[in-house]
Amino acid sequence: MFVGVTVLLLSWASCALSAQYQERYLDVPVDHFSFSRTNETFKLRFLVVEQFYVKGSPIFFYCGNEADITTFFDNTGFLLEIAPIFNALVVFAEHRYYGLSMPLGARSLSPSEGLRLLTTSQALADFVRLIDHLGGQYFGTMLTNDTFPVVAFGGSYGGMLAAWLRMKYPHVVLGAVASSAPLLQMNNLELCQAFYRSVTESFAANGNCSYPVKLSWAAIRNLSETVQGRRSVSQVFKLCKPLESSEDAGKLIDTLVDIYVNLAMLNYPYPTHFLAPLPANPVKSFCDKLRSFGVVETAVELLQAVSSALEIATNFSGNTQCNNIETTVEQPVDYAWDFQACFELVMPICSSALDMFEPTQWNYSKYAQDCSRKYQVTPYSSNGVLLEHGGRILKYASNIVFSNGLSDPWCSGGVLKNVSDSVVAVLIPQAAHHYDLRAAHPVDSHYVLEARKFHVGQIKKWLNIP
Amino acid sequence: MFVGVTVLLLSWASCALSAQYQERYLDVPVDHFSFSRTNETFKLRFLVVEQFYVKGSPIFFYCGNEADITTFFDNTGFLLEIAPIFNALVVFAEHRYYGLSMPLGARSLSPSEGLRLLTTSQALADFVRLIDHLGGQYFGTMLTNDTFPVVAFGGSYGGMLAAWLRMKYPHVVLGAVASSAPLLQMNNLELCQAFYRSVTESFAANGNCSYPVKLSWAAIRNLSETVQGRRSVSQVFKLCKPLESSEDAGKLIDTLVDIYVNLAMLNYPYPTHFLAPLPANPVKSFCDKLRSFGVVETAVELLQAVSSALEIATNFSGNTQCNNIETTVEQPVDYAWDFQACFELVMPICSSALDMFEPTQWNYSKYAQDCSRKYQVTPYSSNGVLLEHGGRILKYASNIVFSNGLSDPWCSGGVLKNVSDSVVAVLIPQAAHHYDLRAAHPVDSHYVLEARKFHVGQIKKWLNIP
Repeated sequence: MFVGVTVLLLSWASCALSAQYQERYLDVPVDHFSFSRTNETFKLRFLVVEQFYVKGSPIFFYCGNEADITTFFDNTGFLLEIAPIFNALVVFAEHRYYGLSMPLGARSLSPSEGLRLLTTSQALADFVRLIDHLGGQYFGTMLTNDTFPVVAFGGSYGGMLAAWLRMKYPHVVLGAVASSAPLLQMNNLELCQAFYRSVTESFAANGNCSYPVKLSWAAIRNLSETVQGRRSVSQVFKLCKPLESSEDAGKLIDTLVDIYVNLAMLNYPYPTHFLAPLPANPVKSFCDKLRSFGVVETAVELLQAVSSALEIATNFSGNTQCNNIETTVEQPVDYAWDFQACFELVMPICSSALDMFEPTQWNYSKYAQDCSRKYQVTPYSSNGVLLEHGGRILKYASNIVFSNGLSDPWCSGGVLKNVSDSVVAVLIPQAAHHYDLRAAHPVDSHYVLEARKFHVGQIKKWLNIP
Repeated sequence: MFVGVTVLLLSWASCALSAQYQERYLDVPVDHFSFSRTNETFKLRFLVVEQFYVKGSPIFFYCGNEADITTFFDNTGFLLEIAPIFNALVVFAEHRYYGLSMPLGARSLSPSEGLRLLTTSQALADFVRLIDHLGGQYFGTMLTNDTFPVVAFGGSYGGMLAAWLRMKYPHVVLGAVASSAPLLQMNNLELCQAFYRSVTESFAANGNCSYPVKLSWAAIRNLSETVQGRRSVSQVFKLCKPLESSEDAGKLIDTLVDIYVNLAMLNYPYPTHFLAPLPANPVKSFCDKLRSFGVVETAVELLQAVSSALEIATNFSGNTQCNNIETTVEQPVDYAWDFQACFELVMPICSSALDMFEPTQWNYSKYAQDCSRKYQVTPYSSNGVLLEHGGRILKYASNIVFSNGLSDPWCSGGVLKNVSDSVVAVLIPQAAHHYDLRAAHPVDSHYVLEARKFHVGQIKKWLNIP
């Protein structure tokens, strides 16, 4: 899950798992909910791992979210690790408008027109068509005649999709493991402060290093009032393009906020390459490095310490020449998630004076206005996704596990209590964003191991396996 | 539910119930599943009866089907009769593309372009938006914040919509009474013969009068081979436009088949004005009249007897000058249902030599070709509605009553067995098409009375009313 804008300072990377996937494509309708003369289709990309599959066994179906599907394949090893237990076919389906799955070809990411078919309902319908196709191919039967066992998985927004897929299409998937899915964050003003509060707690728990971070904002603002000060700040943060005005300070701050959020969200106990390369325990790593500077006496010294400590993220490779702070969504590849966050997946986030961030208010009407201007779209209402998928009304669902790592800031919007016997919550202490879906690692806590064991048990229950 | 084409010989009529409705309109999105610059909306029509309503009580929501909503208001008195028990608000929602609810204005019914947004998913989403609006108006709360009790009702295709509304949007409606909803008929080749078989049984049960009907087809075909014969047939059936070729005989036969189907479907024990004015027990009425002609000796005499007996339907008023057999869909008002039956609600119907009709085969590929040519639409696949709504996989649903009159030919595609404790089937002997949803009548059988009592009991259970 990305907050606000993609973290552009961090570059993407991926690492290959041992299991080999086949990359395939299925023609699916561009628009599932209208008929047209041309019956336009596009190629939905999906990855298939057949090596564990025995005919008649289930399909494990990962609901792709807001990135190239290989990113999720590389960071969701859990499916491949448990596939042999179930002789399962493993499929990772790409989400429309991400990676190589572009419904309207080259014009898909055009802000004013191309993105109009980027909705959760269309994405779910893509997955249903793909599952129907897989049924024909692997079970020799279409859903029209029979059903076959499919278990959905997803992390973050993908976890929402997995849960909704089970809720909307229970005849298509038997159950869903939804990890770190902040279903309840949407349109939920009550939770506005919870996200940044959780990030703050992560840093505060590491020798109170939230405190110097909090002081750094005023230092940046004050220095940026003068030409000389802006020059200092630009040098300290090694900015590719020096600050030119006091307004530019806001861009720098937005960028830094995104980095802190990512450190908390991706605070895994070993080095990872998910949204960006990060060291083990990045929050602790940042805080330890910051503390090593001892007492600082000036604003510039404070910022030097912060900037230097942040190099665990901004200069992981050691080769970063300069840092870019153009955090506004400017590349077409960023439009898709920004569009979704604008119109359907609106998650109110704000911060108070108690947090390590500058206080910010949630102003929906300004947010909506900015979004409408950017994409020339005016949604019918702000509650569309709640009407469509039910919001917090989950009691009619069945066979869903909602898991949340308690150190993940997104857990603030997660389902943290059992809803019923078959819609259950799993809380994983000290775990970051969808940690449980990652491949096993020697330093995994027993909490994570227990969570994964629980998932396997639930899946067996759904499949009637003793 | 209409078979194939609208029965044009029969004119529409309606009678007012004592309860007064207010006619209202709500602006809803033309397309619920894409964003657009213009955010087009249209006026969805709905009828509201407030006279029984006490604040905080449930909403009884009729899911309009393939006609002007006043038709269903006039023929679904059950809702109004039980509303006082529950202090319920009664709402009849019109289905998009019928009556006055035209998503694209005057071009809505244009075959090549206007109909493209006529899908079950769009129609359900209209209803959800309307219910959300009613929640705001009557409960002072949007669905985003809270839920309020809504019970869905529907007959025939409207019954399918009521069931699907509960299945897809359980957070929006608490339960559904789906009367005579032939959910299982769709894409179901196994049931191909069941419909005409059931019609045949209705007539056979009335002194075996299916037999002369069966003989009449060959009489029409044979006579229509010659100019003289066509003149006789045209005179006998009082055709507005005399038969001009042996092919025209097919049109006459199609028209007559539709009338027989309607007599069986609307075989109520008292005079009705639903799809057309009909006498009490129209099948018996037809058969009695046919039998009164005694033994006939020639083909023309047979057809005279049949034509005369059919006047219970074709000349109910006594003022019919001539009969029109242009049964092909030629009026825009007929396009909507024909379009739905073509692309989403494909219900295979055929007849065998055992039936009272000419043997006909179900040829999907020819059917699909004809449909595609007519509307310039090629659907992605033929199983879209099954993937979307689950077909016969109903075990994950809850709080649905499927009721079926056993003398209704559509009961062949109905849910006739309990699926679970809360998805239950009600079979009503000797009852025609959604008889149970009609207003009480002195001649109602105790079967119908029991069915209605059962519905009330189920609704009380859903609402937690002792």
